[in-house]
Amino acid sequence: MAPGRLDEAGGGAALQTVRDEVITKKQVSAASHMSGDHDLVLKTYRILIADLCQQFGMGHPGGAIGMAAIGVALWKYVMRYAPHSPDWFNRDRFVLSNGHTCLFQYSFLHLSGYKAMTFDQLKSYHSEHADSLCPGHPEIEIEGIELTTGPLGQGVANAVGLAMASKNLQATYNKPGFEVVSNHTWCMVGDACLQEGVGLEAISLAGHWKLNNLTIIYDNNQITCDGSVDMVNREDINAKMRACGFDVLEIEDGCYDVDSIVDALEQSRKSKDKPTFINIKTTIGIGSKVAGKAAAHGAPFGAEDIKSMKKANGLDPEEHFVINEKVRSFFADLPRRGEGFVKEWKNLVEEYCEEYSELGEEFRVRMRGEMTRNWSDLIPQSFPTSDTASRVSSGLVLNPIAKEINSFMVGSADLSPSVNMIWDGKVDFQNPDLKTSCGINGSYAGRYVHYGIREHAMCAIANGLAAFNRGTFLPVTSTFFMFYLYAAPAVRMGALQRLPVLHVATHDSIGAGEDGPTHQPVELATLFRAMPHLLYIRPGDSEEVAGAYSVALGYGAGPSIISVSRHKIPQLHGGGQGKGLTSRDGVAKGAYVLQESSVGEHSDITLIGVGAELSLAVELAKELKESRNIRARVVSFPCWRLFEMQTITYRRAVLGRHGPEGIPAVVIEPYAPNGWERYADAGICLRQFGHSLPGKYIYRHFGFEVQPMSEKVVGYLDGIKNGKYIKGEFVDL
Amino acid sequence: MAPGRLDEAGGGAALQTVRDEVITKKQVSAASHMSGDHDLVLKTYRILIADLCQQFGMGHPGGAIGMAAIGVALWKYVMRYAPHSPDWFNRDRFVLSNGHTCLFQYSFLHLSGYKAMTFDQLKSYHSEHADSLCPGHPEIEIEGIELTTGPLGQGVANAVGLAMASKNLQATYNKPGFEVVSNHTWCMVGDACLQEGVGLEAISLAGHWKLNNLTIIYDNNQITCDGSVDMVNREDINAKMRACGFDVLEIEDGCYDVDSIVDALEQSRKSKDKPTFINIKTTIGIGSKVAGKAAAHGAPFGAEDIKSMKKANGLDPEEHFVINEKVRSFFADLPRRGEGFVKEWKNLVEEYCEEYSELGEEFRVRMRGEMTRNWSDLIPQSFPTSDTASRVSSGLVLNPIAKEINSFMVGSADLSPSVNMIWDGKVDFQNPDLKTSCGINGSYAGRYVHYGIREHAMCAIANGLAAFNRGTFLPVTSTFFMFYLYAAPAVRMGALQRLPVLHVATHDSIGAGEDGPTHQPVELATLFRAMPHLLYIRPGDSEEVAGAYSVALGYGAGPSIISVSRHKIPQLHGGGQGKGLTSRDGVAKGAYVLQESSVGEHSDITLIGVGAELSLAVELAKELKESRNIRARVVSFPCWRLFEMQTITYRRAVLGRHGPEGIPAVVIEPYAPNGWERYADAGICLRQFGHSLPGKYIYRHFGFEVQPMSEKVVGYLDGIKNGKYIKGEFVDL
Repeated sequence: MAPGRLDEAGGGAALQTVRDEVITKKQVSAASHMSGDHDLVLKTYRILIADLCQQFGMGHPGGAIGMAAIGVALWKYVMRYAPHSPDWFNRDRFVLSNGHTCLFQYSFLHLSGYKAMTFDQLKSYHSEHADSLCPGHPEIEIEGIELTTGPLGQGVANAVGLAMASKNLQATYNKPGFEVVSNHTWCMVGDACLQEGVGLEAISLAGHWKLNNLTIIYDNNQITCDGSVDMVNREDINAKMRACGFDVLEIEDGCYDVDSIVDALEQSRKSKDKPTFINIKTTIGIGSKVAGKAAAHGAPFGAEDIKSMKKANGLDPEEHFVINEKVRSFFADLPRRGEGFVKEWKNLVEEYCEEYSELGEEFRVRMRGEMTRNWSDLIPQSFPTSDTASRVSSGLVLNPIAKEINSFMVGSADLSPSVNMIWDGKVDFQNPDLKTSCGINGSYAGRYVHYGIREHAMCAIANGLAAFNRGTFLPVTSTFFMFYLYAAPAVRMGALQRLPVLHVATHDSIGAGEDGPTHQPVELATLFRAMPHLLYIRPGDSEEVAGAYSVALGYGAGPSIISVSRHKIPQLHGGGQGKGLTSRDGVAKGAYVLQESSVGEHSDITLIGVGAELSLAVELAKELKESRNIRARVVSFPCWRLFEMQTITYRRAVLGRHGPEGIPAVVIEPYAPNGWERYADAGICLRQFGHSLPGKYIYRHFGFEVQPMSEKVVGYLDGIKNGKYIKGEFVDL
Repeated sequence: MAPGRLDEAGGGAALQTVRDEVITKKQVSAASHMSGDHDLVLKTYRILIADLCQQFGMGHPGGAIGMAAIGVALWKYVMRYAPHSPDWFNRDRFVLSNGHTCLFQYSFLHLSGYKAMTFDQLKSYHSEHADSLCPGHPEIEIEGIELTTGPLGQGVANAVGLAMASKNLQATYNKPGFEVVSNHTWCMVGDACLQEGVGLEAISLAGHWKLNNLTIIYDNNQITCDGSVDMVNREDINAKMRACGFDVLEIEDGCYDVDSIVDALEQSRKSKDKPTFINIKTTIGIGSKVAGKAAAHGAPFGAEDIKSMKKANGLDPEEHFVINEKVRSFFADLPRRGEGFVKEWKNLVEEYCEEYSELGEEFRVRMRGEMTRNWSDLIPQSFPTSDTASRVSSGLVLNPIAKEINSFMVGSADLSPSVNMIWDGKVDFQNPDLKTSCGINGSYAGRYVHYGIREHAMCAIANGLAAFNRGTFLPVTSTFFMFYLYAAPAVRMGALQRLPVLHVATHDSIGAGEDGPTHQPVELATLFRAMPHLLYIRPGDSEEVAGAYSVALGYGAGPSIISVSRHKIPQLHGGGQGKGLTSRDGVAKGAYVLQESSVGEHSDITLIGVGAELSLAVELAKELKESRNIRARVVSFPCWRLFEMQTITYRRAVLGRHGPEGIPAVVIEPYAPNGWERYADAGICLRQFGHSLPGKYIYRHFGFEVQPMSEKVVGYLDGIKNGKYIKGEFVDL
């Protein structure tokens, strides 16, 4: 990097001025001899974007147009990738956090030669074709797209996860002369990603971890939907990013100065010990009549405006979607260059595997997305029979696996002492030079992650780790179940992308007790049970915890939440598989009969027990039989989605729905009943917020004890007999 | 303020050093002559906290103990409040964002003379008493507590809302010599609140708005649950806060130096144009054996440690809960002082009302929590009959009200052009000196709020506005429905506190179309329908939108979400009330019969329509009758919670459950069906994520058109006849 110049940045809008490194002078670089070509490429691209939005009268043209020069710098000069080997393991990762500018990415994927992104595909943006590869926001299923983005700020955290993944692999596998992992992560952001909390949390972590392999590229166009950014934000963003531990570079003419952008990007790749923030000043929708205005953001410019743009650029106003040969040839070398990168790297890996055969073999296993050991062998076969909090059971199951298998990146949002996921000898993921006051240090090869009090970033970063290369990492997050609501947008993005992420949610139900209603997730399970692809599993004892992990680790079709108790609960497994009531195979089916009222005998009622309250259902069945001679069968129901995957015959059998004369089912769960109506006829549930009371008192307070529940069930059965209730009408007991 | 000294702050842990104003020297202040008393008060308080946690073996002692001197500075010297008039309108507001340190607040409420917070109450912390006024986190229902806190970061945003409320009232009502609103907002934060995204979003806004009436007090103990903060955060927090537009003060000896804390707090109250961040270095659990360690955070110290603490302080180790007379008398003047404040202010208001009679009357109306006009008169009586997007209908209803009634503080998270909530002549809430690039400026009297792309802070700030004084403000937020997931923790806190906040969620259902699955909230309604106290209302046309606003504005028992469409939908109201099918009174009942199949005739099926898809149900009924001679009645079902408030007779009548021979009901909604099983027997719903397709194509893609739905209903009725389905078992069609 040639020397930039120090200058006073900021100005009227900034709250405070600081000394910034502003890159203004054209630098001598690989790009500079092509600036004639750049003009043609930039205008061709910009008009293409305008045409693509105009075609069906919708889309987001402005941002993509403003970012043209950044795209040229990235795809033509800086990023190391291979269009014809899109899954090349050591490729640079690019994340478009401002996902609404997706045409930016689609167009450069097309121009740089990704095979799937044909010209026809590009033109299918916002068409009626459901199989279009150009949806309204980038989607992970598309060749060349690393992660689905759109909800703002997520991409920043995803990128942090991708950069962590590289760092961890580098520290684990690289050897002197053998940098088998050396890729860089580039994250494009708009104004929004720097306002959203999840972005800010992730930025703070990137700075803390000194992720020098991460560059955040800020499309600083100072325009959002509502108007100019100074209506809502007058931070000194450069100073803020520096305070968060970033190097900051600034580009004055981000619309045209490809050379300086290239230089800044290359400089950031060479950063020794900090992530880099490149603040690039651009003009949204440049060239259009609405350039620099909010109107350029989310609607086409209109036919007249586009005609004028074409005329002003010496193009035929009646022609659409024109990419001439000169432009095509400008990008034509990229596939071959990419294959060169791949070949060079493959040779390196080859030599590495000869030199370090054991490590090389392991590296190949990881690259294939496999684990170095069979996790299922590590799941305990038996458990103590004394009362055990299921968060403790969770640790008994997870920790031996996480310890042995280095795909696992396990972390917590500052609740490590509560969630029980620290294994013997764990090493923290940290910059190796860090010396903390509490004396717990780490290295980049560490696999325990302290995320701080940043639940949302934690889960979005986990998505990035999981997306680095499918199966290379299995990220595990943890916090109280209630605080997965903070992280829910990221959990959702993981579900949408079917990313293998495991969320361990402790303190579920009302057992958080004295922490009160702010910490008691009475309605939260309804969200996660309804979220497609996600498994929300509430195991009822250690055996079911083992079942929950077995299912979640083998699932492969999305993330899982294993939801466990803070407080000690009775163990129903009798010490081992098959010895007691609970069954890990039963968990895999979502629900199963825990006990029939008695063999061959007709039952009066089915009691559905769940998670921390499963044993209550068993106790209640006993009480009903002994005191009232009511024959109750008990079903354990840890996971709705898994149950839905079973045959209707199995489901009816479990629920006691043997034809029209099936017996009624009552579910017991101190959560909102919403959705239980599908499986039960009545519920002893909670249709209000919780209360601050120590554990045992809160269960009493809300009537989750055998006596009051017994009375409710008796009253319910009477009500059915005397016609108070109608079949098919759910009753809140 | 006596001059502080400029110094190099930061040090090993900070990523970057900046010049800070560090207050080190004891200043001459009101507090200084009492420093002998301070020692006694501090040690008494600290040991009291230790005893209170030890009593029942749980609680959070460390933070509260570390903050002792801050508490003395606030309650004894700085804050203007009246313990015997806790609801005094012009009181300073205090928010404990680090809510787990609640004993800090409870103890000082007790010591300063709040009547409800008796000594016995204080000692009920974590007891078995459900009516304790000392729950695990501060709750709004308790005298002297402004807002419920606990989920970290929320309080920061709440405090920003409280400060905005003051600013707006000041700009609206204050006159030279008549500062009838002059209160300050104090927000106590721990390390966590500065890591959480919602806190960071709110901080950015506070700086932008130049809320000089806000002080954020940072209990900088550098300890969290996991260990020392430098494990997860090495930001230069002072530089970051400055970059965000805050003045920064620093206190070196935050555990004992009451005088300097008082000076800094007083200085912050006098800030001319910026909010203030006071970085106070403390030691968590000071005096205990675990002082300065994570172990001090969330568990009692143990009997032995507390005995040692008492001995070291010259107290009897066998005595518990000791507050001696000297300590009591130290705080004894506070109630009288408070009444003095109140009297002085009342006189001022009296004079003000004489001088400015009209404004004074209005001010009194606002103080009583009433509106200056009857909002219901402003709701349109009729609407256009042409197809109208319900987000447009929403604007037709809300805007005339918001324009006329200045309790309304309406805002958007950067989607103003999309949510249609800008009224003619609206003025933005902005610092009056701000000159934006886009030329839209404002004043503190403005009532339209640009929140930026900060959904979470928006909703948490709205909670603060609503909590300033019940009814003085009616905050309205808006964004796409999907992005209320980002804000869900704040929406929940509003619901928990029953705060009157209105959330207007546009682009609901799958109508967000081409924006794709990241923007289509297929499962989100399940959360808000299950959330206690909250009304989630999906109106089906303009008439129902009018009904939704009528209900929400009159509700009073919590927040509401009015969920409206992006796309145009048919109007069923026939031009006005009673002329067509839809009914605003029907909305108030949650669900109602839109049309019977024909008068007096038996029906075959009930079709439940909702929101943007309501008209589809009507069309389907017509098709079923015409093509298949199936008699379908149609129910409109905008709100579950309201329906649950109706009698069982009404509910059964609406749903067509006339005894055991009731007819089956099918719900039509492109959302996850979870919970509809309560009201319907089958559902044409969506059990997967959405898809990126323009509006009409996405409805076709998922089968939400009359023909495929008609076939599904016919198949369903056949299935019932031939025994494929069991009564009471929900069927996904």
